[in-house]
Amino acid sequence: MERKFSSGLWVFANSIDKYGGYTESLSVKDQIKAASSVKGLKGVELIAPLHVNLDTVAEVRAMLEDADLEVVAVNPYLWTEPIWQRGALTSPDPKVRQAAVSTGKRAVDIARLFGAKKMCLWPGEDGWDYHFQADYSFLWEATADGVRQIAEYGDDIQIGIEFKMKEPRTHMLVGTAAKAALLGVELGLPNVGAYLDFGHALMANENPAETVSLLARHNRLVGVHVNDNYGAGDDDVIVGSVHFWAILEFLYALECVGYDDWISLDIVPTRENIVEACQQSITNLNNYYRLLEKLDRQALQKAQSEMDAIQAQAIVQAMLIQA
Amino acid sequence: MERKFSSGLWVFANSIDKYGGYTESLSVKDQIKAASSVKGLKGVELIAPLHVNLDTVAEVRAMLEDADLEVVAVNPYLWTEPIWQRGALTSPDPKVRQAAVSTGKRAVDIARLFGAKKMCLWPGEDGWDYHFQADYSFLWEATADGVRQIAEYGDDIQIGIEFKMKEPRTHMLVGTAAKAALLGVELGLPNVGAYLDFGHALMANENPAETVSLLARHNRLVGVHVNDNYGAGDDDVIVGSVHFWAILEFLYALECVGYDDWISLDIVPTRENIVEACQQSITNLNNYYRLLEKLDRQALQKAQSEMDAIQAQAIVQAMLIQA
Amino acid sequence: MERKFSSGLWVFANSIDKYGGYTESLSVKDQIKAASSVKGLKGVELIAPLHVNLDTVAEVRAMLEDADLEVVAVNPYLWTEPIWQRGALTSPDPKVRQAAVSTGKRAVDIARLFGAKKMCLWPGEDGWDYHFQADYSFLWEATADGVRQIAEYGDDIQIGIEFKMKEPRTHMLVGTAAKAALLGVELGLPNVGAYLDFGHALMANENPAETVSLLARHNRLVGVHVNDNYGAGDDDVIVGSVHFWAILEFLYALECVGYDDWISLDIVPTRENIVEACQQSITNLNNYYRLLEKLDRQALQKAQSEMDAIQAQAIVQAMLIQA
Amino acid sequence: MERKFSSGLWVFANSIDKYGGYTESLSVKDQIKAASSVKGLKGVELIAPLHVNLDTVAEVRAMLEDADLEVVAVNPYLWTEPIWQRGALTSPDPKVRQAAVSTGKRAVDIARLFGAKKMCLWPGEDGWDYHFQADYSFLWEATADGVRQIAEYGDDIQIGIEFKMKEPRTHMLVGTAAKAALLGVELGLPNVGAYLDFGHALMANENPAETVSLLARHNRLVGVHVNDNYGAGDDDVIVGSVHFWAILEFLYALECVGYDDWISLDIVPTRENIVEACQQSITNLNNYYRLLEKLDRQALQKAQSEMDAIQAQAIVQAMLIQA
Repeated sequence: MERKFSSGLWVFANSIDKYGGYTESLSVKDQIKAASSVKGLKGVELIAPLHVNLDTVAEVRAMLEDADLEVVAVNPYLWTEPIWQRGALTSPDPKVRQAAVSTGKRAVDIARLFGAKKMCLWPGEDGWDYHFQADYSFLWEATADGVRQIAEYGDDIQIGIEFKMKEPRTHMLVGTAAKAALLGVELGLPNVGAYLDFGHALMANENPAETVSLLARHNRLVGVHVNDNYGAGDDDVIVGSVHFWAILEFLYALECVGYDDWISLDIVPTRENIVEACQQSITNLNNYYRLLEKLDRQALQKAQSEMDAIQAQAIVQAMLIQA
Repeated sequence: MERKFSSGLWVFANSIDKYGGYTESLSVKDQIKAASSVKGLKGVELIAPLHVNLDTVAEVRAMLEDADLEVVAVNPYLWTEPIWQRGALTSPDPKVRQAAVSTGKRAVDIARLFGAKKMCLWPGEDGWDYHFQADYSFLWEATADGVRQIAEYGDDIQIGIEFKMKEPRTHMLVGTAAKAALLGVELGLPNVGAYLDFGHALMANENPAETVSLLARHNRLVGVHVNDNYGAGDDDVIVGSVHFWAILEFLYALECVGYDDWISLDIVPTRENIVEACQQSITNLNNYYRLLEKLDRQALQKAQSEMDAIQAQAIVQAMLIQA
Repeated sequence: MERKFSSGLWVFANSIDKYGGYTESLSVKDQIKAASSVKGLKGVELIAPLHVNLDTVAEVRAMLEDADLEVVAVNPYLWTEPIWQRGALTSPDPKVRQAAVSTGKRAVDIARLFGAKKMCLWPGEDGWDYHFQADYSFLWEATADGVRQIAEYGDDIQIGIEFKMKEPRTHMLVGTAAKAALLGVELGLPNVGAYLDFGHALMANENPAETVSLLARHNRLVGVHVNDNYGAGDDDVIVGSVHFWAILEFLYALECVGYDDWISLDIVPTRENIVEACQQSITNLNNYYRLLEKLDRQALQKAQSEMDAIQAQAIVQAMLIQA
Repeated sequence: MERKFSSGLWVFANSIDKYGGYTESLSVKDQIKAASSVKGLKGVELIAPLHVNLDTVAEVRAMLEDADLEVVAVNPYLWTEPIWQRGALTSPDPKVRQAAVSTGKRAVDIARLFGAKKMCLWPGEDGWDYHFQADYSFLWEATADGVRQIAEYGDDIQIGIEFKMKEPRTHMLVGTAAKAALLGVELGLPNVGAYLDFGHALMANENPAETVSLLARHNRLVGVHVNDNYGAGDDDVIVGSVHFWAILEFLYALECVGYDDWISLDIVPTRENIVEACQQSITNLNNYYRLLEKLDRQALQKAQSEMDAIQAQAIVQAMLIQA
């Protein structure tokens, strides 16, 4: 299994030599510079128009080439901005919904210019905060309609809905992998699937390895974000620092379904040096790949074919002990 | 909106005049008698072969007619029994999987004899307990295959998969409404959907009202169980005793999608008199319907069409205050 | 039971006529103006030095008198600022710890000038984010030492530790009411207790009514913040919009222990008009007090004296139905 | 650090060669035999009178000597039995409360006969299931009174309250370590503390290592149960199978506070061979001790003294990689 590590460029939005949450954002150029200083990082996901728009593609491309970073995905900026206050794809205002679709199409245009094949579409403002606040059938209808328009326009781009249960809303509509997959199946569009954020799967009480399997079954696994959290919120801490067995099983599941593509960091250190936190995340991932080299796959498959928990435990715990 | 209250017959498995969890199970006859003593209860869900098999249909039918109880659903008994120890539809043993399918088909036969139109299919042993224990693609394949066989055999019966995140396993495969719906869509069978247990939706951190909307959108809402819990486990306490706003919104959502069918109690009092707990659950439901009569639907729809949380709050809180 | 509603002044930090999270902070003067526009709001909690310092006491007092708002508490500003990046009371740097204590003492000075009797002390940066990151015995020692110094200096001020499980750190040290109470008992200082934030109690899976009882038992209930959330994070949504039964029981518990003091709003609307969200919160609280007027306290006490859940349900559900 | 592994004898209540939850309970003799077949297990905790009463002490002692098993603790049987249906120490019926205290005193008597020094007191029925059901001040008063009576009677026995948030009740009164410690401090009895069940700490969203530190700070760490779960319920799965970093940090924390006593298995396999599950748990623990041998304690203490998360990660992740 090849190991292609990338990162959301947004990860580097804050200074690398001051405390995470407390300093001004860096310029795109400095974000790219920070990213390029992480050993083993070979690609970035860009947000359009936050990081790049049609006018700045050439400029950003030059920066990325200098930094030896590939563009993995171009993701439409459908959150935080005041226009999305009541939702983006699902705003009550049809003009806002149209703006969201246009933002998605522009991201497609930019992806094509970079030769990127994927979009991570995070409908982060599409949901609700209170009981009785939303007409859920409208939310679903508007989401399906918006995604369809973007996906038909960008039919050469894999659109991965980045499902998430909550934050910034108390409830987001597309909260689970199965909802994202169901959306793709409903639309009948082969290029609509899920962007699997490890931490978002945990927030949904999914076992990320099973999520991989579910999405692969429906040919809807578009991309992967890695990070970690304590289960109840999107802590976005260093990869592998909390869910040890879950990340090992996740990496193994990716291998099982033949996912041989980018693995993107999406961590948000709030007190740590960002470059160091990314570097440690990659160190941890490489350690875990090294442990997996010791996994007796044949024995494990036999144990699984019997649902034998004791054997499965014996086999995976053996990775920890030196021969 | 009509109000047709039913109950799982299993709810009455324990004595009505001794403490819930501590006494011997009642006979089917006594369970029916207990159910019939709950005012407002007009139907029951049966488990086959736990409550009834092909040989006892006539006998049970007579008891139910005496008790003036209709059969709402006949549900295959695919849990607890030793044979299902490593899974039912997903057992590693093909003979066990076949037994699970046969149990499902027998439940179809019995449903037809009772004139019941639904099956609540709970794959309660189909999942896993440990990381690395299961081959998830096999679990999905086996589940899809088993459900397909039962659903094709019982093509006049609506099969609702009762999704649940956990308990008795630490993880069950079909854990969410979207997974159940996706299974139905994948199979392309119109009679495969979800049996929506209010508490199971809560366990999945779903807002049950949104779950109703999602399932209705895909024509996959087969039936409804009501109960309550504290969010993290299947407490099955008295309906309406915890999630007040959620159950009100849920009942409203059922109205919105035109669900005009049975609402089944599925509570498990462990210390309370079971008949009294059921009676209080129905009292609570009737209270909540009465509150909903005061809901200004037109104003609410307007608030929802603007995603106006403050207005939505003002409107729903007004139900509580006397005119 | 008297009803004295106050609010954290910080609640009004964002504009009242633009979208919550997206606009610039208001001046202290405008925050006070916004607070004064909420009908029924009679007091505020101030943060020192964020809202007021020793030099601006007279100025702020004048603003508050104009606005007819009393000062309920003066709370030391021990979070967000860069100096607290590795902790405040528990920083590894003794100078920072000393600065935290000094900030607490200044808040005492200011409280005295305003005639306020309480401090809500939130050690929001004191905790850890990663396994193995912290020496917990040091964290406890430093917390106890810092709180002792502040409390001995301000021995006429009730110091309520605002316990919280997490956010902004993944783990905060004083996460539960019992930890706060234990700290007070350990120090042997009668003026150290807990500031009970309803939502923080929920985050700790406490039933806030029981928390009231526990703290009252140890004479450690200093003050109360109200808001609501969905259980897993500090959503700080409108009071009463989620946990209906829990807030009713909480208000009843306050009555039972004779708490007859300020109830402070601590909500953080991110998309709603802040004044309207506060107004709706007070409307909801008043509605709930009105429901509680219908509570048959004598019958409830009898039911509780038998641990009779069915009777307790019957009694509390009856509040909803008009006579 | 010495490694003394014991187990609750109840762990072996079900057959070792048939499926866990589905078979008849074994005799005490056979449970002891099963326990003795687990390599590395040297002690057991007994429940009185479930496993032993004053009349059977000699008989049970003989069985244990044959099996080469020491008695670690004698725990009063205050749950499941019909008499405790409305609570044990907190029953509304004073006779039942007295029976609970007597059961505790008998366990003290039996402990003395075995030379055991500890009691794990689990008030598993003392709590509530519904909002408004309980008078919490009574619950606290009755709990304090009952524990005091038992602890004064058994002043040579360390009484560890086994705190737990829920199950079998939806809420148990003594739900957290801090509540247990507070109870001990309140009573002013040095022999009242907490029995720290690793999984119960997780259920309370405690980090078990911090729990160790908190309890040690107050000299209230009586004993330790190990197992694992997925965070939201008492799954009692194989030790180390889920929370890898948490158990490592927990074992390290025990070392730091100088806990050099029994570590008791308290797992409840429902589908696995019980002896094998215990054996795997001990294998895992021994593996983790071996990993901890590679921990650079000096470097870790330095990182902790700076709250340096990156360094702490680097140090602990290094345990996984062969030199």
